[in-house]
Order: sequence, then structure tokens, then C-alpha cells
Amino acid sequence: MIKPGPDNDVHANSGYSADTTKAIYGFSQVHVSGTGGGAKYGNVSVMPISGNFESVKQESFRDDEKVQLGYYAVRLKKWNIKTEITTSDRATFYKFKYSSEGKNAVKIDLGRYLDETDIKNGRETQQFVGSEVEVVSDTEVRGYTKVRGGWNNGSAYTVYFAAVFDQPFGSFSTWKQQTFFPNQATQVDDGSKTGAMLFFNHLKNKSLNMKIGISFISSLKAKQNINNEIPDWQFDKVLTETQQKWDKILQRVEVDKDASPEKKMMLYTALYHTMLMPVDRTGENPLWENDGPYYDDFYAIWDTYRSSSPLITLLDPKRQVAIINALIDIYKHDGYMPDARSGNCNGRTQGGSNAEIVIADAFVKGLKGINYKEALNAMLKDAMYPPGGNEEKEGRGGLVDYNRLGYVSTDYVRSGNRTVEYSYDDYCLAMVAKGIKRKGEYWRFIKQSDNWQNLWRDIENNGSRGFIMPKDAHGKWVDSILCNVNNGRINYLKYTPLSQDWPNCVCWWCGIFYEASSWEYSLSIPHDVATLIKKSGGNEAFLKRLNTFFDNGYYNVGNEPSFLSPDLYHWIGRPDLSNERIHQIIDANYSSKRDGIPGNDDSGAMSSWLAFHMMGLYPNAGQSYYLINAPYFKETTLHLPDGKDFTIKAKNLSDKNKYIKAVTLNGKPYEKAWIEHSDIIAGGTLVIEMGRTPSETWGKNQLPPSKPDDNKI
Amino acid sequence: MIKPGPDNDVHANSGYSADTTKAIYGFSQVHVSGTGGGAKYGNVSVMPISGNFESVKQESFRDDEKVQLGYYAVRLKKWNIKTEITTSDRATFYKFKYSSEGKNAVKIDLGRYLDETDIKNGRETQQFVGSEVEVVSDTEVRGYTKVRGGWNNGSAYTVYFAAVFDQPFGSFSTWKQQTFFPNQATQVDDGSKTGAMLFFNHLKNKSLNMKIGISFISSLKAKQNINNEIPDWQFDKVLTETQQKWDKILQRVEVDKDASPEKKMMLYTALYHTMLMPVDRTGENPLWENDGPYYDDFYAIWDTYRSSSPLITLLDPKRQVAIINALIDIYKHDGYMPDARSGNCNGRTQGGSNAEIVIADAFVKGLKGINYKEALNAMLKDAMYPPGGNEEKEGRGGLVDYNRLGYVSTDYVRSGNRTVEYSYDDYCLAMVAKGIKRKGEYWRFIKQSDNWQNLWRDIENNGSRGFIMPKDAHGKWVDSILCNVNNGRINYLKYTPLSQDWPNCVCWWCGIFYEASSWEYSLSIPHDVATLIKKSGGNEAFLKRLNTFFDNGYYNVGNEPSFLSPDLYHWIGRPDLSNERIHQIIDANYSSKRDGIPGNDDSGAMSSWLAFHMMGLYPNAGQSYYLINAPYFKETTLHLPDGKDFTIKAKNLSDKNKYIKAVTLNGKPYEKAWIEHSDIIAGGTLVIEMGRTPSETWGKNQLPPSKPDDNKI
Repeated sequence: MIKPGPDNDVHANSGYSADTTKAIYGFSQVHVSGTGGGAKYGNVSVMPISGNFESVKQESFRDDEKVQLGYYAVRLKKWNIKTEITTSDRATFYKFKYSSEGKNAVKIDLGRYLDETDIKNGRETQQFVGSEVEVVSDTEVRGYTKVRGGWNNGSAYTVYFAAVFDQPFGSFSTWKQQTFFPNQATQVDDGSKTGAMLFFNHLKNKSLNMKIGISFISSLKAKQNINNEIPDWQFDKVLTETQQKWDKILQRVEVDKDASPEKKMMLYTALYHTMLMPVDRTGENPLWENDGPYYDDFYAIWDTYRSSSPLITLLDPKRQVAIINALIDIYKHDGYMPDARSGNCNGRTQGGSNAEIVIADAFVKGLKGINYKEALNAMLKDAMYPPGGNEEKEGRGGLVDYNRLGYVSTDYVRSGNRTVEYSYDDYCLAMVAKGIKRKGEYWRFIKQSDNWQNLWRDIENNGSRGFIMPKDAHGKWVDSILCNVNNGRINYLKYTPLSQDWPNCVCWWCGIFYEASSWEYSLSIPHDVATLIKKSGGNEAFLKRLNTFFDNGYYNVGNEPSFLSPDLYHWIGRPDLSNERIHQIIDANYSSKRDGIPGNDDSGAMSSWLAFHMMGLYPNAGQSYYLINAPYFKETTLHLPDGKDFTIKAKNLSDKNKYIKAVTLNGKPYEKAWIEHSDIIAGGTLVIEMGRTPSETWGKNQLPPSKPDDNKI
Repeated sequence: MIKPGPDNDVHANSGYSADTTKAIYGFSQVHVSGTGGGAKYGNVSVMPISGNFESVKQESFRDDEKVQLGYYAVRLKKWNIKTEITTSDRATFYKFKYSSEGKNAVKIDLGRYLDETDIKNGRETQQFVGSEVEVVSDTEVRGYTKVRGGWNNGSAYTVYFAAVFDQPFGSFSTWKQQTFFPNQATQVDDGSKTGAMLFFNHLKNKSLNMKIGISFISSLKAKQNINNEIPDWQFDKVLTETQQKWDKILQRVEVDKDASPEKKMMLYTALYHTMLMPVDRTGENPLWENDGPYYDDFYAIWDTYRSSSPLITLLDPKRQVAIINALIDIYKHDGYMPDARSGNCNGRTQGGSNAEIVIADAFVKGLKGINYKEALNAMLKDAMYPPGGNEEKEGRGGLVDYNRLGYVSTDYVRSGNRTVEYSYDDYCLAMVAKGIKRKGEYWRFIKQSDNWQNLWRDIENNGSRGFIMPKDAHGKWVDSILCNVNNGRINYLKYTPLSQDWPNCVCWWCGIFYEASSWEYSLSIPHDVATLIKKSGGNEAFLKRLNTFFDNGYYNVGNEPSFLSPDLYHWIGRPDLSNERIHQIIDANYSSKRDGIPGNDDSGAMSSWLAFHMMGLYPNAGQSYYLINAPYFKETTLHLPDGKDFTIKAKNLSDKNKYIKAVTLNGKPYEKAWIEHSDIIAGGTLVIEMGRTPSETWGKNQLPPSKPDDNKI
């Protein structure tokens, strides 16, 4: 819940830029991980300083940066102060080493946060609401900061804090706006930016330790969080405990000892990134009774449903059960499950109501401890009740069209990807309905899951036929779109499967397809690839289509709509071609370096996509199986939560032996290029024999599942 | 903002029952005034006690109750403790007189609130979320209580408090749930009910004074509210200041010295009640920047737009400007203006989005200091964007139908009154659009203001023709409604203009007409009474219709839909009959006694209806004029805020001289039975000559305004 870190770029999502020419202005306690768009959080900014205390603003360049799991260290060059940070779940330990015993201070700034702007109610920016500070004793300060907005344009959230020191400060000053009030213990919230400066003039060994706890409930609870989690002053103990906690999770995937450090670092960094979001805030929900699990910072499920959720389900199903119960609880109290949520507020949807997929994924994989009847109600709310207002906070925008016409018309923004995504959401809803014997809902929504076909237009583009294309509310295909006014004339542009209307013709959120083209979304029919292939002209045409997609650069490695696309060759019996594409993609775009992910991580989406594919598996989220691909490790063992092991051996794996020749499961020949979740959690060994050329038979006869023609319940 | 009072009935809206057999269990700090439905608030409950402190629960019967403006006193019989209360805006002064010097205590209970229930998420009930208490010193306690739900099913609100005493307590105990923790200064919020018991064993003169401040921002701000408003310990001074503040408002209406105390008490009590809601919480908005006026407890505008808002506009236009700016600010930050709002959360709509009427009322009466362009945007949001979810929080439910079909079909609940109310809301929107030269919006919405006619069905009932009746989405009239299942058979009932489908056939909120029949709503076309009369068959038929309405008891004195109905005779040139009805209604239903209002006051709605009619005026809210009726006072002077006076003289008024014979305005004959707002605020004298028989000519020729046929801008 607490995610401390240095802030040196107010417009960076993490507050941090690797660029050392940008000065650090503080270490704040709350961040999200791997996100894009406008920033959120960056609250309760602390800073050790020396010397001149005349200004609220204090910043320094840095060197000697050191980063480990659970640990960050830096030297602030301006004052020559070494700062080390480690953390527990809800409290952080700061260790400061100053360059002298006197004239030192710690600044606690409640007026800082990321993506500050002068634009009133600016979209995707954070807006200051208020703050309060109270110097409680000569070793303790409490207070809060309240901010609204940010990426999800959410309502106000409050971060309460308590800070305690291992030795008393000699004096202090609080401030409001830019004015200091020496020895005034409180600044009451009147909507101003406040903070406290704590002066230490006789530090033992020039050293000072500080613990900060945060809470979303109260500052007393923030204090309690310190006491519960970091009762004493042993920095190394806290660091060790944190690393041990992480080890417990990361060690659930064990790879062979010979694996290269580079590949191991890629895998474990990816696992770590995946587990950072959403954030466990159980007991810290300020909105309703804290009698169940509570998670925040779904950012966004649109990004994470494809690979993050399935990876958590595989490695830490207990956590996934808690996350889903939190989603249902949010529906029960806020009216809708989020597609995205941050700062205790739903928002925003980009396309579908993809919690449906997360729930179906859990259901078909047999996760216990979820009330699937309540989950179905939550999904039905999405599918049946328009969310209102500007229809971007939650639920399904354009639902009136979708339920009346069978597609979202161009009367609504993002009509193309909304239709495609709702179709799959409906399929997932139908699967849960079927499973719990709700026939009425099953029949309605399995039928609706074909709705993507209502926007399938039989046109040709770059040698391929058939694309998801825009249609107006009268059922007419839309051939051209309004795009700007030039020289006094309204300008129309022809709309093609490669058109990208945003952000040039319309706003980023206002195009036909969100963050991708029709080429990409027209391959994104995860429940019915068989029909997609048929409508595309059959296997040969689809093979050509996929090749065109990758070879012409229509594929976007840095975004989610194409996550499954390199695996689609499986459905035409060519898993060898999936393998080739996947390894090309990984080798060209991923590494263990600082920029080892293509673009931002989207809350672990990229990382989990990588982790799965490195292990030789890839899920089709919402469905019960994993596609089998060539792994990056000779041996990967999943230590499953119930004590069983599932081992994936890549026999004869080498740079040259990169094709799958044959597979056995628990010693028996295994002809399918996919494996059921139930086979994995039963424990066992999957031996993948690698060779220089593809197998003639493996994966060719039994193709991965698609929506069956008969929809019997 | 603070409204302290005794609580002896957890299901009473005020927490208070006149029934002395119900024991007082505490004095809580927040209440609403004159509301119905499920209760809200009743937070931070305090109680002076003596003797046995073993239980959290402490209650006593009462006597010696005394109530004055700004003052309440009672003797708690169990311990013989006299409690006196007076208050400033945001802090309350409690004066306790115990029966002995020792073994006394004050209990501060953060686990009490009105309409507590065991039903999880029970509709219209309050649900406990959390609380916290901190004994800060031996004279000060701070903390908060957090509750959600209540009448508007709102999200969580937090009432912070600080309590200070004029002498130190000797010891204390805090509690969590039912367990006491002696000398433990804090109970941190873990979702439990908490509180503090403060023990006083050596009270000077057996007396103890306590001040409590509240805040919706923080407990330090609650403390600041005490310091700002009640800096010392002089009870009488606080009481005097409060009464003086009220006098300043109430004295804006001055009646002749000979007026009977009974009538004066009725008038001034009514004015007082009107001014209690909505509540000024400027500077106390926890949700966004406090840089403008903020009002809460609109409860509901559906109740108050007809007479409360116009009365505030007339007597305290500055307050009305602040209220409307708060409404616009709520739209800007929460997405919609409220029709009802409480605990910082919009909810619920009963019919229309009636903020449109409040804004139009201000606009046509020339209120300055409102950005009417922004106001128009707020109204357009209501009129164009469905609010989503269950469509009861804000905006217009069934809007998809209304904008597609021109009426709300029976696919939606409350289809009848929603259609009628949206038509008038649209008229009001159109009037503002017209005034600020927004022709496009004017033309659309002035046309839509005829939409009530789409549900006008030419049927006969009890001798009258033409009623607003339900229609389905295919345009067919609905003749019967589903009503329960009896003996295994589904039961249909014929639907007539007198049918009341709620709550027997359907839920309270689920009928065709909310809280009234078609007979009532079919008379509620305030913008176009002329067309209503025409469609009803002309003047004679309408006269007969009105007489049937009142004589057969179809009129409901205790609810708002019929507020204008007794004045409708004005539109057929018979103001004498309006007078007769109004005086009959007042004399039979209103008095200065405890039960002197028919039913609950609906946040001052009943009171303001009474006050206007006693002064001889009644507004048609949203329009610029007042209907003239026979006053209850020989002379009523409105001391207008800009220093001008407007006097209404009822010459020869007596029990027998109850008809208006003739009228002059500033000495000139005045033939109209209505007067423009601009004529009143210009100052002057309206002389109404009273007699034993009605005038032959007055009010007969120039009828009050109706929507003009040509809609020129």
C-alpha cells in the first residue's frame, strides 16, 4: 500500500525520471507502478535538508543511486546527505546520514503531488483540495493531504500519515502556503498547502531515522500501521523481512540453475512488476465497512485482464480470490465494478467492462471462495444498465445502442473497440451464467457474444478481407470521418482499417478504436478465433493476414489489444509460427535493462505477458487453457500453493533448437498445443522436446478451443 | 450547520418524539429539519450522567422541557440533571447542572445515529462505517464518526468533532464496542463503535459547561469552529447572538401590531422553518476546493422548489444566489446538480430535475451573481444525459424514452409524474436559454415543454375529462397494471386517474405517479394552465373539475404536487374561489400548535406555502409573478434587502370581510390578480380592499400568464 520513492519529475507517472539532471524534490509515499496517461498520487513528500531553511522548496541533484528489491539509496549532492529507504506494507523506514551534526532538518510537505497544474479541473491532472499538519510531540508529526483528479479523474482521496523520529527535534516550524509559523504546532485545513520543518541540531553520528506510516482512514491509524509493522528501529530487519516476503512469492517459479542471469532477471523482474498492482488496501477502505478484502489501483483492468490476472491466479490464487471479492464488494457499494479504479474511485473505461473476463477466468479455473451468483449480478449490471453521465467512469458506454442495435453505433465514441470488447465480455458473462445454471442469462449473452460480427465488413485491405468497421445508428457503414476544418472547409477523411482518427481528427478517447487500428482489433476475438478465421477466408488467408500484420508493422508490441495476436497461428495448426513471432518480439523488445520493456508496463501487463511466454505458456484470459510455446528456460517449476509442483522441461533447448518437436505430459505423448489449467494445478511434468525444425504433427490436428456451434447448457 | 437536539426515537427524522414515555438516549449534533422517509444524521451523541457508569447505554425520561428559538432545556429525571443547549452556526454550548458535586460524567458516543438497522445495506437506513476518539487533554476530546446511507442512500459522510470543558475531568475511559479501556486515550478506527466517558468528581456548584464544534473536514477544524464562534464560556451571550441573527432575517417581514399572537406565531415559525434548509456548509466541503459557497441537505428540491426557494429569493436573495452557485459547483464537480443531496452526496430523484426550476426562478426574478451560461450547461446535462445506474441518484430517469418518444413509457417507474415534471423543467430551461440568447436550446426545449400533452388521454373520470395517463413504449395506452399474485393467479388491476398503485401493487417509488394520483398531477402544469383548461373542456368544465378535486378529497394538503392547485381558480377569473379554498385549507390544517402542520414539513415546504399565503401572495416557481390572495394580516411589510419596503395593506379585513373587493398598487387601481416580482422589489404599497362579497371585476379580465402560443425569441 505504501510505495515510497524519489520524485524528480512531477509529470512522470512514478514521480521518477532516470535523468540525473532532474533534481530530486522529495520522497513521497504513494505511487502506482508502471502506468501511463496522467499521473496519480505522489503524496506526503519528505526531504532531508541541511543549512538554509528559508524556503519551502528544496531540491538537490543526486548520485550514488542504488536499487534493490525493497531498498533504494541515494546521495543528495547539494547537502551531501545519504538517504536509504526500505519499507513494510504500510509504513516506510527512512535512514538519513547527514554530513554534519548540526543545522539539519527534515521537511514534510503536504502540498506536493504529481501532475500538478494551474488548469482548473484539468483532465487527467491532480487538483489540490486541502491538507493539515500537527506536531504532536518532539518526535512525532501527523496530518494528511487531500487531492482529487489524476488519470482516472477521480473524486478526492486523503492520504493520512504519521511520522516518528528516533531522536527529538530541537525545534520546528509549520507552514501554510509559503509562510512559516515557527513553533506553531498545527495548521488546520483551510484548503491551503501546509507542511512542517523539523530541526535537528545535535544528531548522534550525523544519523537520523524516521518511520512514516500512511493510512486512508486516519492519522492515528497511520501511526498504528507503524507500530504494527515496524515496532523498532532496525532498518536491516525491515529490509530483510520485506525481501523474504517477496521471495515467498517469487520462488513459486523456479528455473534451472544454468539459466542466464539476464533471462532470470527478466523473469523475476516481470513477476515482481506483476504483483505490484492492484494494491491490497484491506482494512483501509474509507468508504464503507472494512469487513472484507479491499483492493485499489486497478489501473486498468483493460490492461491487466489479459495476462496479469491469469498470472496472479496461477501463482497466488488466494490473492486473486481476494481481488475478485473486492471487485464484487465495490459493485455492491458503488454500483458498478471498476474497469479502472484509483484513489477509491472508479474510472475510467477505455472499452469493455472487463471485470467480466477476470471473473470468468477465475470461474473456469475453479477458484473457490467467490460468490459467483453475486458476481453474475455485478456482471449483469454492466451488461444491462447504462452507466450514465459521460459514460467513462464505469460500466458500458453506448450500451443503449449495443442492446438495441447489436453494436455500438458511431453516435458514441470508441464504437469499434467497445463492440468488440462487449462481445467478449458477454461471452465471459455467459460462461459464468452457464456454469451456475442460469439458463436465461446464458442464452441471451452467448447470443450477444456474436455481436462483433455485426460490425464485420467484407472489405479488402492490404491483401486481407473482412474488418471490424464503423456503422452508424441507421445501420449504414461509415466510409469517411469528420476531421478538422481547414481553410474554412470541413474536412472528411476516408476511413480504412489502418486509419487512426485519434488524436489528429478527434481526441485521444474519441476515435473509432481506442489506442489501435481496425487491423489490430479485427484480430481480437479471443472466444471465437475459428469463426474469425472462417470470416477472414480460411486458414491460408488467415496465415497471410497474420504475416501481413506482423511484417507490415501493423502489430503494436507496446499495447494490449494485440497481446494474443502472435499466438493466433496456433488456431491454424502452426504453433511453430507463433513461436517464431513470440521469440522475435521478445528478443527485439525486452531485456533486463532499465528500458527493457516496450513502453510503460501498464501495471504489469507487459511484464506478465513476458513472464508467461518465457515459461512457455500463454493464457487466453477468461478461458481455461494456456497455449504452449517454446520456453526460454530448460526447466521451469511452478511450486503451486497447495504443495504440488508442475515442471516444464525444454529438452535440448539451445539457440539452434528453437522449435518444438514433440511434447509429453507426465510421460505420455501430448499432441495438443495447449494445456488445461486443471492439468497444471494437478501437478506433473510437461516435457517439451526441442529441435532445429518444427514438428510435422504436434499442434496440427486438435486446434485450441473456440466458441462451440451448439450452445447447449 | 450544527443542529443539536435530544434524541429519544431512533426512527424519528429529527431523532425526537414529543412522546415523553420515550427516554432520551443522548443529544446529538447533526439533524435535518422537517423531513420524511428514512432518517439521516443524529451523530456525535453526548449525555450527562451520574452514578453508575458500567454500561455504554444510558438513558433517562424527561420533564421540564423548554423550547425557544436557539434554546432547549430539559431535566433528565433519572439523575436529576438539567441540560440547557444553545448554539452558534458550527458549535454548540451545553450547560449541565447535576444534582451533586461528585460521581458525574459526560458520555460522548460515536456509535449512535438515527435509523440504525441490522439489515445490511438496508434501503433508507444508515449504516455504520467507523469512528475514532482521542482524549487530547484533561479538558478536550476529539474524534469523528462515519456513517453511510440514510434517506438518500448516500455514500459515507464523516462528522468530526472537538469537545472542550470549562473544568478538567479527573479521569476518563474510552470504549470500543461495549468494552471500556480506562485511561486509554485513543481508540483508533478499525470499524468499531467507540466513545469516551469523562469523569468529574468535584464540580463547582454542581455545574459543568461543554462546547462542541463539528466539522466535515477535520477534528482540528471542529476545534477551530469552537474558537472562532464561541471563544468564551458565556452561555447567555451565545444565546443572545443566535437570537439576534435570527431576528435579522425574521424581521424582514413585519406585520401590524394588532395581529393575533396565534397568527404571528404561525407566520414566524413558518419563516424560521423555511430558513433551516438547505444548510450552509461553506468552507466545510470535504470533496473539493472550498473556494465558493457550499450548501448541503437539499432534501429535496422536489419538495422545496415550489415555495421555499421563492421565499428565500424574496427575503434573502443573497442566500439564494449562494445556494444556486453551490448547485452549479456541485454539477461541475459531481457531474449533476442534485434534486436531493445530503451528507455530501446526491440522491434521490423523485420525479424531475427540479434545479431547473430553481435556476429559472432566480433568472426571471433578476438575481445577479450567477453565471447563467454555466447554469444552462448544468440544466442541459440533466436534460440530455441519462444519469445511469438505477437512475435515482440525480438527473432524469427514463430520459432515453423521454428524448426518443416525447414521454417516459411504462418501461420506467414513475413514468407519469416524470413526464409531467420534465415538461416543466424543460420550460424553465427554455426560459433561461431564451434569456441568454441561446436560440437553439430555446427552440428544442420550449417544444419539449408540451410533452405532458403526449400523455394526456381523453377519458372521463368523476365528471371530468382528460387525464395524464400511462403509455407504453409502443405508444399504446396502458389500461391495467400488474398487481401482486393471489392464490396462484397473476392479478391485473384497472388503472384509473384515482388509482394508487404504490405501495400495494408496487414499491413506494415504483408507481406511475409518485406520492399522488393522476387527478393531482393532471392539474400540475404550471407553465401552461391555459392549455390545460382548454384540454379539460374550457372554463366551466375546469371549474367543475377543481370543485370535484377539492370536494371529493382528491386534493392532498400534505404533499407538494397539489401546492398550486387551490390557486388555479385564478386562471378562470375566479380568484375569489382560490381565496375560499386557501383559507379553508389553512384554517383546517395549520395552527401554532405542535402538530400545526399537515404531516411533516418537507424541509420547510409546508411552512413556506403557509407563509406566502398568509401574506396574500403565492409564487408560481420558475415564473416571475405572484398570485394575489386575501392576506391574514391587515398590514404586512416586506423590508427588502436593498432598503426598500413593500407593504401589503388589507383594508377592512375582518372575519366577515374575507373577499377582495378591489386593489390599488401605489395608489393606482390594479385589476390583475397577480403581481410581478419586479413590482415588489421596486418597493411600494399594495392596498387590498376587503369586503363581504367578491368583486365583480377584479381578476376577471387579465388572467395570469401561461405559455404563449408564439415562441419568439
